[in-house]
Formats: sequence, C-alpha cells, structure tokens
Amino acid sequence: MTAYEQFCRHAAEINDILCAINVLQWDARIQMPPEGAQTRGYQLATLTRLAQERFTSAENGRLIEVAESELTGADPDSYPVRAVKAAREAYDIFQRIPQDLLAGRAALSAEAQNVWAEARKKNDYALFAPYLKQMLAYAQQMAEAIGYSDHPYDALLVQYEPGMTAQRLQTLFAELRAVSLPLLERITAAGPQPKPAFLEREFPIEQQRAFAIEASVAFGYDLNRGRVDVAPHPFEISFTRQDVRITTRYQLRYPFAAIFGLMHETGHGLYELGAAPELTRSALTSDYLGMYAVGGASFGMHEAQSRMWENLVGRSLAFWQVYYPRLQEYFSTQLADVSLDTFYRAANRVQPSLIRVEADEVTYNLHIMLRTEIEMGLLDGTYTVDELPAAWNAKMEEYLGLTPPDDAQGVLQDVHWATGYFGSFPTYTLGNIMSGQLMAAARRQVSGLDDALARCEYAPLHNWLIDNIYRHARAYTPDELLIRATGEALHTGPYLAYLTEKFDALYPG
Amino acid sequence: MTAYEQFCRHAAEINDILCAINVLQWDARIQMPPEGAQTRGYQLATLTRLAQERFTSAENGRLIEVAESELTGADPDSYPVRAVKAAREAYDIFQRIPQDLLAGRAALSAEAQNVWAEARKKNDYALFAPYLKQMLAYAQQMAEAIGYSDHPYDALLVQYEPGMTAQRLQTLFAELRAVSLPLLERITAAGPQPKPAFLEREFPIEQQRAFAIEASVAFGYDLNRGRVDVAPHPFEISFTRQDVRITTRYQLRYPFAAIFGLMHETGHGLYELGAAPELTRSALTSDYLGMYAVGGASFGMHEAQSRMWENLVGRSLAFWQVYYPRLQEYFSTQLADVSLDTFYRAANRVQPSLIRVEADEVTYNLHIMLRTEIEMGLLDGTYTVDELPAAWNAKMEEYLGLTPPDDAQGVLQDVHWATGYFGSFPTYTLGNIMSGQLMAAARRQVSGLDDALARCEYAPLHNWLIDNIYRHARAYTPDELLIRATGEALHTGPYLAYLTEKFDALYPG
Repeated sequence: MTAYEQFCRHAAEINDILCAINVLQWDARIQMPPEGAQTRGYQLATLTRLAQERFTSAENGRLIEVAESELTGADPDSYPVRAVKAAREAYDIFQRIPQDLLAGRAALSAEAQNVWAEARKKNDYALFAPYLKQMLAYAQQMAEAIGYSDHPYDALLVQYEPGMTAQRLQTLFAELRAVSLPLLERITAAGPQPKPAFLEREFPIEQQRAFAIEASVAFGYDLNRGRVDVAPHPFEISFTRQDVRITTRYQLRYPFAAIFGLMHETGHGLYELGAAPELTRSALTSDYLGMYAVGGASFGMHEAQSRMWENLVGRSLAFWQVYYPRLQEYFSTQLADVSLDTFYRAANRVQPSLIRVEADEVTYNLHIMLRTEIEMGLLDGTYTVDELPAAWNAKMEEYLGLTPPDDAQGVLQDVHWATGYFGSFPTYTLGNIMSGQLMAAARRQVSGLDDALARCEYAPLHNWLIDNIYRHARAYTPDELLIRATGEALHTGPYLAYLTEKFDALYPG
Repeated sequence: MTAYEQFCRHAAEINDILCAINVLQWDARIQMPPEGAQTRGYQLATLTRLAQERFTSAENGRLIEVAESELTGADPDSYPVRAVKAAREAYDIFQRIPQDLLAGRAALSAEAQNVWAEARKKNDYALFAPYLKQMLAYAQQMAEAIGYSDHPYDALLVQYEPGMTAQRLQTLFAELRAVSLPLLERITAAGPQPKPAFLEREFPIEQQRAFAIEASVAFGYDLNRGRVDVAPHPFEISFTRQDVRITTRYQLRYPFAAIFGLMHETGHGLYELGAAPELTRSALTSDYLGMYAVGGASFGMHEAQSRMWENLVGRSLAFWQVYYPRLQEYFSTQLADVSLDTFYRAANRVQPSLIRVEADEVTYNLHIMLRTEIEMGLLDGTYTVDELPAAWNAKMEEYLGLTPPDDAQGVLQDVHWATGYFGSFPTYTLGNIMSGQLMAAARRQVSGLDDALARCEYAPLHNWLIDNIYRHARAYTPDELLIRATGEALHTGPYLAYLTEKFDALYPG
C-alpha cells in the first residue's frame, strides 16, 4: 500500500464517522421523538470527538507527512495532492487551536442557544448579552490562535470561505450597495405594494409537494440517491454522494415557501450529488475544521448553487413560462384567474422587511451586510456587545428604511451568534455574487444555453456546473474554481447586471 | 473519579457508538434511498470496528480489572458489579476469538446473503450450499474458540441466551412436543379450516394504523420516546431508553399483520423503554458480543415480552371483548356482520403451514424445533450441509404433516444461516415458554390482575414487568430473572397450561 493509499484509508474512516454524524443530525431534525434529544446529544458529541481525535492524532500527522513526501513533484492540481493539502492545512490549524478552546466553546454553545431562544421569546437582549460576550471572547481567541495579518475576521473566514478577507468583503459590499440601494429606492418610491390577493387562498400541501418535487427532478435531483422530507428550518445534508437529502416546509396560503425552498435545497443537493465518484469517502468530501461531511468548496460556493437554482433559474420568467401552466393544473381552482404576469411578479415581489429569512433578492444582501459589518465591528472593537441593538437598528434604518419594533425582530432574530460561529453570514451574499458569475460564464461557454433554459431543459446548465464546479468537491478554493470555470476572479459585475436587468424589467418605475 | 466511574465513562462512549449504529441501521431499513446502501455499509462497518476496538482494547481491559478490584466485597447483585461482570465476560470471550475469524465471517456474510436470496429466488439449494458450508465452518471455529464442555451448540448459545445449553433445549422441546403434537392432531383432525370470509375484504391502511397505535399506547408504549414506522420486515430498535422505535407492515386484506405485528414489536419496545434510567449509556444496555445497543437480558427474554403482549394479551378474548367494538368503529362496513366470536377465532386460527413467519401459536414452536435440531445436528456432525433439504422435509412431515413443494418454501426460507448466526432460532420458543411463566407469576403476585386485564387496564401487568424484568436491563441472566420474578427456574408448565386451555376452548373437538 502506498503512503497515499494509507492516508486515504484513514480519511475514509473519518469520513464514515462524519457521515454517521450527519445521519444522526438529519434524524434529530426530521423525526426524533421529543425525549430523544438528550442522549442523541451525547451520541453526536462522542462521534464528533472520535472523528476529531482521529484527525488530529499524531498518526494522522505522520500519514499526511509521508503522503506529502511521496507526492513531491506530482501535479499540484491533481486530486491526490489537493486531498493531502486540505488535510495538511486543517491539521496545522488544529495544532494551533488550544483543545480547551474548542471544548469550552462547544460546552457554552448549547447553553447559549437555549438562553438565546428564551431571550428572543421574552424580547430581552440583556438576558443574552452575557452569553454573547463569552461567545465573542471565544471567537477572538480563535482568531488569535488561527492567526491573521490584517483583520481578526480574516482568521474566522478561513473556516467558511478560504481566501476571503474583511478587506475584500468591504470592497464587494461597497459595489453591491452602490447598485442595490438606488435600485431599492426606485422600487419602493411608489410606496408599499399590496400582498397579491391569490395568496389568501389555500394551496393543499400534497399538490405543493408534488409540484416542488417535479421541479426539483427537472433541475436534476436524483431520487435514487436522495429523498425529500419536511423540516421547520429546511436544509440539505449528505451521507456521501450516494445519499443526499433535501427538505422543505409547507405553508397552506404561501406555496412559494415550499416551492422556492425546495429549489434552494435542490441547488445544495445537486452540488453534493455531482461530486466525482472517486472523491467518495475522501479528504475532499470532509470539512475537517467543521467536522462535517460535505463536498463543496466553501459555504459561499455552496450557497451559489442554491441561489443559482432557486433564483436565477427558479424565479426566472423562462421557468414559469413553461411551468406555470403545469402549476395551474395542480391548483386549477386557486390559480385559474391568476395570469402568468401576476404570478411571476408575486414570486419576485420586492418589499423591505425586518426578517432576513423572508427577504427578497434585492434586499437580502442588505441584511447580510448589516450582520457582517456588525461581526467585523465586534471583532475589531468598533462595537461592544452592549451597543449592538442600537447599531443594528441604525443600520436597518440606513439600509432598509425600517426600525425594528423590538429586539426579537431585530438583533435577536438569528441563532448564528449563539452557536459561537462568527464569519458565516457573508457567505450568503458571496453565494449570490458567484451565482451571477457562474451563470454568465455558462452562457458564454455553452452554446444554446438560453434556448435550452427557455425550454426548461436543464441538462446543459447542470452538466456545465458538474464539469466546472460540482465534480471537484473541495479540491480547489472558491477563487481557483471561479478562475478555472469563468476565467475571472470573483467580481460583482455579472450578478449586479442580472439584478438590475431583472428588477428594472419588473419595476420599470 | 473512581475506577468504576472511569469504567462507566468508557462504557458510555461505546454505547453512544452502538446507538449510532442502530440509528444508521434503522434509517437503512426504513427510508434510505436505494443507492445509499454501499456507502452506508462502509459507515456501519467503520462504526462497528471502532466500537469493537474500544471494547477489546488493552485500556478497557485495565479499566475492567481496576473496577473489579475496587468493587471487591460489593453486593454481587448490585448494578455496578453486574456491569463490570458483563464487560468482563464479553472481554474474555473476545480474547479467545481470533480477529480473522470475525473479519472473515463478516466479509462472507454479505456475499452469502446475496447468494441465499438468489438461491431462494431460483429455488436452487446447490447454489447456496457452498456458502452454508463456509458459514458452518466459521460457526464451528467460533464454538471451539469460545469453548464448551458438552455440545458445540452451547458455545454459540452464549451469544443469544446465556445459560442455555443443547441438553436443556432437548428436555424443554420434548415437553413441548408431548403436548403440542397431540393438541395439533386434535385441532386438525376435522380437516383443513376455511379462511374466514371477512378477510377477503379491504381494510384501509390508515385505520389499521390508527387502531394498531391505539392498542400499542394502551399497552404502555410511549410516543414521546418512540415512533411507529412501516417496514417490510417489522422490527424494534432503540437508541437508549429515550428513543425506542417500532415498526409494522400493512396488508390491505389482512389487518392481523399490522395489528398483531405492532403488538409484538410493542412488547419488545416496552422492555427497552422500561430500563432503569441509571442504566442509560451503560454496559448493561450494551450487547458487547453482538456489538448492539440493547437493554434486554437475552434474545429469549426479549421475545418473551413480544409474545406476552402479542399473544397472551393481544390475542386474548379479554382484549377483544373490549377492543373489538372499537375495531368495528374503525371498520364499520367491513366488520358490521362479523361477530366477536368469529373475529376472535380468526385471530387464533390454527393451520399447519410451510412458512415459520406465518405460523400460529400452536405450530410456531414446531417450526423452531425443526430448525434448532438441524442446527445442532450440523454442529455435531449428525447432518452434512448436503443432507439438509432431506432432513428438513422429513421433519416437516413429522411435526406438521406437510412436505414443501420446493426448497424455496423449505430449507431456503430463512436468512439466518446466511448471516452466519447459528443458535438464535431456539430463543423464539424460549420466549414463548418464559412468557407463560411470567404471566402466571404476575397473576399470583398482582391481586386483581385478571379483573384489570378484563377491563384492558394494562398498568398493573406493565408495572409488574417493569419492576421484575424491564428495569434490570442486562443485569441478570434469564435464569436469574425468572427465579427472582417467579420463584421458579425455567419450566414449560405454565406455558403449556396456557396453550392447552386456550386452544381446547377454541377447538373443543
């Protein structure tokens, strides 16, 4: 057995444990009986510790080192070199993080999430603030341990978006703001838009489900390697590319929740389903820093796929020109008197709101900028934890022209900070930017792509994404992937052009 | 931390892994997409190896030894002493089994099961025979490694029914035969009985499900710590006492499959749900030889609970006197013209058949004796693998008066031998015997038990079983439990009295 083969065998075992963790997580979120939570927590903690012990062990260090020697001179872009490199980078970072830091953060995280839930329920930020201070202290220690040259946020971004920095984010955000804010101003100048009347009607769940799955399968989702379930907070999760599961939720009077929710998770799912078969159970389908089995290059690149299929494909006029008559068959009484134009506008209605998860394409990035700027400010001392509600509300006014009536609908709305993970918010917006760039490149490279999309034939787009992004799993960084796939580094141009063109047409002003 | 606490911490980690294995198994049997099987197999193999490595490690040996020293002089019946004893016995057995034997058997098992399925489908025993020979060789090596003083079968029984021997089984079986065969002869003297006409009707699945769950909850099943799903081969499985899941299957024209199937699994579930809370994540809820998280003393004692609730309670006239009107509400058109007497007789119809899993209470044990005698004969050289079809058919004729038209409905019908596990069949019949003994003891000890059962109040019986059997999990052997609970060693008297009384009344001849 070569040194690389030994490395792979060890990586496969760790991936098996990470996949088992995912199965237990999926079960806990979908169908676990209420009183199963406590012992399930122990099971997850034990498996996570086992995986981490095996990854950070001296034995694994030796396997990585010997494999590196053996691969000296090999193609630096080959999967074996990349697999060993991914393990090396995570291994070295783990060497720098004190063991008690991870243990302390994990121990606090469960408690902090409970307190956060109570604080949100009681609308009492002061209850949560002491926990947020401790979580922030852990994040600061983590940043110091990992190391950075410019901004402490850079060290935290490593876990979610390799290569991204606070500096780069500020540039990207400035570009987005310059287009989004005037666009939003134009759209909202006419005052608040009424909620579409047909959304007062009831849309039976079974038909919502049938249509959502039909669209998911049309995009390329493979029910032989996956399944669709109900979850209050929809998600995608995989246990190797052979079993990639997606979820959605159903609202009787708001079928968009189920339809676009499932398109979003389908995008995540297509990424996992598309990993090269030879990367199954490998270091390149294992996120060692997160101790999570996943086959995507970064949070942002993953989100690019969900946004691609939900927004650029699923909310497009081209999609509904073909699929709206089909939806009308499922809901013949509810939609008989609703025109395609009315329906398409309802699916793309822009309306500033307080809540991120309900935001439309134009306002979503503004919610993200707000959070990212606050996170950066917490890390570099611009804000204290006690100043957060005021900072939040000021930015809501600045970006969205709204003031939250209370902290529950403001600074307390997201669970992220209670979990101790700072730095993942910007990946949602990075995903949007990348989705625009990928779609533009696919249009350039795949002849007849727009004609295919107009016929709702998705194989050409899907195959281009598999060849250029999905099959590589975690072999390349997002920057490398973008340059390989599009010839260009990350830039906002195509995404902003998409946004402007689409919403100028919808809101000609 | 005391030595015992250190021992417990290690045992808790192993139990966490075993519970995770159970979650992965449950998922694989209930809902895994078809192409997930291969990588799920790797995940299960890795977790099983991890659990086994941790259990058989020198470190665990040291923990056991130090805990034994520390507990010297402690009450030999206390849970701590029993926990360490259970670990010691399994640890010593593992020391005697060569590692390649387990690995070889595991590797062959998957292939042998595939070949068995094909052989059954093609009705081709010769296809399966070479694999059965190899599996038998493994079983013989396992018996020699574990050790025995009288019959090699004794060594295999250790894994399923501690304390049981070939000699004891032969005595018990002779007693069963002496009553069962004449009883069956009386019942069948009048010739074959027609299938009840109402079983030609359709019983919608949703109502079957609702009624089956209602009965399960009446018996004491706790839906806050469990859930009910559909499985083609129903089973019960637990991930600690906090999450105990049961399954059943539905046949449109045969509601007995779902109703009695779920009662059976409910009995298994009540055993797991009833374990003492302090035994959660302990050595006494871990089957180390089977590398399986389970809180029952043995396969036989577990089966005693499923038979208790399915047959002694669920198929009793007392149950249906109360619940048949309820069933008629669920199936008002199907059962309006069916009397309680007709229904009760249909639920207890005795009919010799070729297939074990379809057998009634009177003939079931005969199917088990046949298999057990063949297993013993294979182990001690009475039969060769090539002689098996003839031996099977001869015993079918002797016990049930039937000759299988082919091997698919004969010697090839069960998967057990293909898996490599010899010695579990007799535990089904031991469960029947124990169920009779436990019910008789409960009747003696719980005043007014029959009145309660006549009102379908199950708390008195359930609580007696919790106090005497369920809460102890694996702390005592089946023999110890029976003596503690009933004052008597295992004997067939109460079970045979039950069988005779019930079926003499049903078939007065």
